[in-house]
Amino acid sequence: MTEIKDKSIENYLDELASKAATPGGGSAAALLGAQSAALTSMVCNLTIGKPKYIEVEDDMRALLARAESLRTTLTNMIKADVDVFNQLMAAYGLVKVTEQEKKARSQQIQTVLREATLVPLACAKACAEAVELSQQAADKGNLNVISDAGVAVMSAYAGLKSAALNVYINTASLKDGPFAEEKLAELELILNGADIKAEEIYQLVKNKL
Amino acid sequence: MTEIKDKSIENYLDELASKAATPGGGSAAALLGAQSAALTSMVCNLTIGKPKYIEVEDDMRALLARAESLRTTLTNMIKADVDVFNQLMAAYGLVKVTEQEKKARSQQIQTVLREATLVPLACAKACAEAVELSQQAADKGNLNVISDAGVAVMSAYAGLKSAALNVYINTASLKDGPFAEEKLAELELILNGADIKAEEIYQLVKNKL
Repeated sequence: MTEIKDKSIENYLDELASKAATPGGGSAAALLGAQSAALTSMVCNLTIGKPKYIEVEDDMRALLARAESLRTTLTNMIKADVDVFNQLMAAYGLVKVTEQEKKARSQQIQTVLREATLVPLACAKACAEAVELSQQAADKGNLNVISDAGVAVMSAYAGLKSAALNVYINTASLKDGPFAEEKLAELELILNGADIKAEEIYQLVKNKL
Repeated sequence: MTEIKDKSIENYLDELASKAATPGGGSAAALLGAQSAALTSMVCNLTIGKPKYIEVEDDMRALLARAESLRTTLTNMIKADVDVFNQLMAAYGLVKVTEQEKKARSQQIQTVLREATLVPLACAKACAEAVELSQQAADKGNLNVISDAGVAVMSAYAGLKSAALNVYINTASLKDGPFAEEKLAELELILNGADIKAEEIYQLVKNKL
């Protein structure tokens, strides 16, 4: 089967809109983050080598390396969401006739639910990093393309909030309370102040236009 | 040349990240809106036909039709941004040796700048409509996929704020003050309260998880 990242944008949107269970919001969240990282890279690529921006050239090169690495991570997460969803469906589909089968099925569901919590949590973390990187692009990037840093921050913030929803859903079904609480606490740390930071970066960009 | 929507997601992200001027934030904004409409359609498609949601079936069918129409509009806007950018670059590239050439070039730039204002303004309007549609999906959609309505609202809101940046940029270069002011006023009407509405829809979804 063709991986989502190898499908055309139009095909991806068609499949997203369809009644097929995947791709869904989890993949969309990862794409939001990947798009943000790509836009930060664009700002770097259009700043590096310009005499006017020679003073920030080293910073822009370092930022570009981080943004490109993050873009790879987030692009891979488009697929990770589909994979863990399929694993979850497979677990729910296990036979449950005997008591032993019921127990095995329940255990497998819980095992996969942990993974289904960790995948969007990692996506949320990566999107939060994309917000940070967009701030550097907004701070130091070429003014001619500074609006792209503004699109980068909005896309990353949307990815962060979107990924958070999938963490909420999957922790709600977890029977391991302490694990669920720990992961929700990690998520809250990531979300804490992200709305204000995103708005600040957006205003920084807007004021430079 | 292959249209962006026909390129793979990975190729799109590669080109977005590159130093090529297009695709840029304007296309990314349109994709954010298109992704939102697709997610609203997904919620509709997974609500229609379910006995539990028979009471909202007509509403969901009407919403699906609007979301799919809007998705087409926004998908076409991915290309519209590239087209108007290329027209603007062509206008700036016109010869400007004689006074007559200078005047003709300046007039052509202003003509294209009007278009370069209208294109992102239309994108902002379409993204604002995508926010509205996501609200209906969040209100009445199948609870099993309600988080996708939450991703839809965040994606649309990011598209709206992103498109707005391109309206600000291009109106700033317009010499026709009344036209620029009129379009900025239209944009402010669209933006007015959108942040609060987006957050309300997100919280509505979160409370249903």
